[in-house]
Amino acid sequence: MKTTIGFIGQGAMGSRMAARLVAAGHDLVVFDRLREATRPLEERGATLAVSAKQLAAGVDVVFSSVTDDAALEQVMLRSDGALAGARPGTIVIDMSTVSPRMSRRLHEAARAKGVAVLDAPVSGSTPQAEQGQLVIFVGGEEAVYQKCQPLLAVLGSKTLYMGPGGSGTTMKLCANTLLGLGVQALAEAFALGEKGGLSRERLAQVLSETAVVSPSQKSKLENARKNEYPAAFPLRLMFKDFGLIAETAMELSVPMPATAAAVQVAAAEHARQLAAHTDEDFSVVVRAMERLAGVA
Amino acid sequence: MKTTIGFIGQGAMGSRMAARLVAAGHDLVVFDRLREATRPLEERGATLAVSAKQLAAGVDVVFSSVTDDAALEQVMLRSDGALAGARPGTIVIDMSTVSPRMSRRLHEAARAKGVAVLDAPVSGSTPQAEQGQLVIFVGGEEAVYQKCQPLLAVLGSKTLYMGPGGSGTTMKLCANTLLGLGVQALAEAFALGEKGGLSRERLAQVLSETAVVSPSQKSKLENARKNEYPAAFPLRLMFKDFGLIAETAMELSVPMPATAAAVQVAAAEHARQLAAHTDEDFSVVVRAMERLAGVA
Amino acid sequence: MKTTIGFIGQGAMGSRMAARLVAAGHDLVVFDRLREATRPLEERGATLAVSAKQLAAGVDVVFSSVTDDAALEQVMLRSDGALAGARPGTIVIDMSTVSPRMSRRLHEAARAKGVAVLDAPVSGSTPQAEQGQLVIFVGGEEAVYQKCQPLLAVLGSKTLYMGPGGSGTTMKLCANTLLGLGVQALAEAFALGEKGGLSRERLAQVLSETAVVSPSQKSKLENARKNEYPAAFPLRLMFKDFGLIAETAMELSVPMPATAAAVQVAAAEHARQLAAHTDEDFSVVVRAMERLAGVA
Amino acid sequence: MKTTIGFIGQGAMGSRMAARLVAAGHDLVVFDRLREATRPLEERGATLAVSAKQLAAGVDVVFSSVTDDAALEQVMLRSDGALAGARPGTIVIDMSTVSPRMSRRLHEAARAKGVAVLDAPVSGSTPQAEQGQLVIFVGGEEAVYQKCQPLLAVLGSKTLYMGPGGSGTTMKLCANTLLGLGVQALAEAFALGEKGGLSRERLAQVLSETAVVSPSQKSKLENARKNEYPAAFPLRLMFKDFGLIAETAMELSVPMPATAAAVQVAAAEHARQLAAHTDEDFSVVVRAMERLAGVA
Repeated sequence: MKTTIGFIGQGAMGSRMAARLVAAGHDLVVFDRLREATRPLEERGATLAVSAKQLAAGVDVVFSSVTDDAALEQVMLRSDGALAGARPGTIVIDMSTVSPRMSRRLHEAARAKGVAVLDAPVSGSTPQAEQGQLVIFVGGEEAVYQKCQPLLAVLGSKTLYMGPGGSGTTMKLCANTLLGLGVQALAEAFALGEKGGLSRERLAQVLSETAVVSPSQKSKLENARKNEYPAAFPLRLMFKDFGLIAETAMELSVPMPATAAAVQVAAAEHARQLAAHTDEDFSVVVRAMERLAGVA
Repeated sequence: MKTTIGFIGQGAMGSRMAARLVAAGHDLVVFDRLREATRPLEERGATLAVSAKQLAAGVDVVFSSVTDDAALEQVMLRSDGALAGARPGTIVIDMSTVSPRMSRRLHEAARAKGVAVLDAPVSGSTPQAEQGQLVIFVGGEEAVYQKCQPLLAVLGSKTLYMGPGGSGTTMKLCANTLLGLGVQALAEAFALGEKGGLSRERLAQVLSETAVVSPSQKSKLENARKNEYPAAFPLRLMFKDFGLIAETAMELSVPMPATAAAVQVAAAEHARQLAAHTDEDFSVVVRAMERLAGVA
Repeated sequence: MKTTIGFIGQGAMGSRMAARLVAAGHDLVVFDRLREATRPLEERGATLAVSAKQLAAGVDVVFSSVTDDAALEQVMLRSDGALAGARPGTIVIDMSTVSPRMSRRLHEAARAKGVAVLDAPVSGSTPQAEQGQLVIFVGGEEAVYQKCQPLLAVLGSKTLYMGPGGSGTTMKLCANTLLGLGVQALAEAFALGEKGGLSRERLAQVLSETAVVSPSQKSKLENARKNEYPAAFPLRLMFKDFGLIAETAMELSVPMPATAAAVQVAAAEHARQLAAHTDEDFSVVVRAMERLAGVA
Repeated sequence: MKTTIGFIGQGAMGSRMAARLVAAGHDLVVFDRLREATRPLEERGATLAVSAKQLAAGVDVVFSSVTDDAALEQVMLRSDGALAGARPGTIVIDMSTVSPRMSRRLHEAARAKGVAVLDAPVSGSTPQAEQGQLVIFVGGEEAVYQKCQPLLAVLGSKTLYMGPGGSGTTMKLCANTLLGLGVQALAEAFALGEKGGLSRERLAQVLSETAVVSPSQKSKLENARKNEYPAAFPLRLMFKDFGLIAETAMELSVPMPATAAAVQVAAAEHARQLAAHTDEDFSVVVRAMERLAGVA
């Protein structure tokens, strides 16, 4: 018997994921809070559900990919949410980047209904991701993970099982700490080097040849070199993730001083972008630090 | 005619460099402020000079590799220093990690005597370095760099010309900003992940498979996994380099907020190591952050 | 006709406030989620309500003083909360320290029912407060503030009108930024001074005579001098307020770099206190910094 | 017999101090590296010395007030410096704000010549100072302090003995940590409050009535209210003192995370002022934070 699949949330990430499932031959039931968002998938044969609840009632596996904690609460936990429709045995695979706290709330609410959950956020801001390669960090029961592995393999080039419920989102926050702070480190090195007399051009070239730069950082050197920051992973999304990191660190009483310093720079740049109505890549902090140092 | 070479400073880095020159067939004149330090090289045939001044008087190229600004001032600029002995046309290649300010002072003092200088610090804390591969960043006149390139090629697996005098040391500080802040980022990600329920083992394994980790960071994951920090690049040296970075940033009015936050953690860990009479690798900040978070 | 008054929440702050109202001759209806908490006031003649809703149904003015956003949502906005019972014309005066966002939610929900709200948190961690003097920052409609001024005057030695709904809680966060960062500044000055050779005793004495220390900071010098930190304003509450400050700053995209640095120290100290099952004053960060510097 | 007095350094602080000594009836011998700087005092009857050495040779007490470590080294330790001229029994009272390290070097060099030193920097950036009241922190032998107390009383409204040599400058750095971080705290509170809807006017007014603001901070509220920052204690001098604080903290391995964060803001503002050729008060960081938050 074939597994029936539903997909809740058709934003930038959700629509990409859903398209891969369709491309792999799966029939999909789809739902999004915005009526328009599901059109492209409907044109490719997906069935529209009128609510997350109705969607969940008719499928074996419910994928979700939504913006934040509040959106996940709405599509999952409210009276018209997926858990209200899901039957015992249904599996929910949530690919949203939400707080581990929210993720655990979902795991618990589902458990009470006999529904299993995997928190499976996508580490999608890596250079590989931009070329279509994606890493998925997975939290939940290992047996459920094993069962869903073939489906996840359609969506990511690598799936990494991290442990019990909430481990996937926790790992995502760890990875994004390194991502965000890594680009802030690049920004500070550029500001120091340029004000010290090195050219932006030469700095970008030389750093790409050193062992102190990660593939993620390397993928941003071209932006820094050109002083142009077209949005691949927009600052506003990095800032949102920094918010989850900061909130989770506070909840767990984990000091993260360098990350906190990077968050303040992102806050200032976010304020600036909101005022200027621009939407640039999060590596724009390189320019922000150059400006503060008086070299841009 | 063969180029005659002198080498001032036989510490950890200097002795390694001098040994490579000897191995490549060069005759060396050596000097160190500590009489004992030159013995190994003398046993391999090097000639001892009684002062930096005497050394410089008898060679075409003077290498130096000393601890800090004060040591470089002593062996180069004092009345018995190398510049006092050097003839016009002599070339000084300083491989020390010193401040760009000190490096430029050396360039200027030498210029007045018709002596050319290259500031050529070694980026020696990379994983490659530990396997014998070293990157050398070079500042000074390009023609002098071209002339010395064959000699530098004996010492480093890669030499990168950065620009005028002081550019080599400036680039070294940029690279070490990324190195030091990179390991602090790792430390904060571990503290967050572990307190969030992930195992140290799994974190180390998974991070090594992501694009957000540089080769330098990757080389420290094994320390974090084992919670053992044998000194490859000791914290006290990283702290010394952080001092140069902070001092240079202040001199140039360059804000470096995340680096400054990392420096504070290194300061606390340095205080602890001094009190405990230990000498661990700079990646020990992973354990420092785990302790502050209450997970170690 | 006499104004009838209800008071929701009988924690440390609420019970103190309610007692002042009783002492001033007011009859009180009281409610707390913990049955036991209202006993002392009942013994002094207060009437017990079975729910916040019932309480609100019978009084003209509803005071509240609860722990956090979640508690305020529960006693105000749920189906058995105060707004469900309040009639048009009722006034709610919330003295809790909650987020401006939560405060504005309360204002809006109340407005829809014809109920007026004042957000009126107490700045109670000042030295004056410890001697019974309290400043109240008030947000809401000015006419409502004027009407309630006589009641507020019973509770605080000073009431300061700040502007529209949410202005009181916003001002409270500004004041606590200065309070928390002020004590962190003290901690860093002590660590520097002591490691530089000054005695704790002399530092405390001399700082109390300078113009760079506020009354709030001055009130903590005795703790630092004795290296004893009995809880007046416990670290866990300062950490909670730091959480509100950080969350509000993120929501508004306001960079607060020095505050963020102080928050990390508080997080580490909070982790330590949780592990050690201690509950010390927030000025214990002086000892935390001394320890990190290796002088305690 | 009357004590003869010399004064080295006639900058902003030195000329003010020297004028007080003249006003108190003392005959002064003066020296400054800039020939013009001593004119005003010569017109009031002071005798000019041709060098610090000559000055020291003819007086019992040598005051000095110079810009920084390098200037102090020049006027004290070089071959034409004061120590070269001073006889055993001479007393040097250095009122410069220099590093404790430099201060101790002076104490040691003087001791070898039988000359006693007091490090006696002036805490001159307090509101009182602006009205002519000054606190002097003194380090050195207590007997020497007692002997010089009457002279110091002419210069400061309060003199506080701190301990052995270097204690005065160390205390000055502690006080300026509180001063500088205190104004940064104010800046962050303003940015948060204004972006949260409070008016600059009301914030300034209300903060002046709270216990969380020091006299120093209070004296800057008027600048913040008007958004005008005429230099009383210019940012460039605060930045210089932040440099001494940071350097001393590094030397002693003392983590100062919130101070370090404040230093980064001062660095950015210093870069901006250098580029704009302005010279504003250090409280201009209030405007800097408002701008970063997008409210100025």
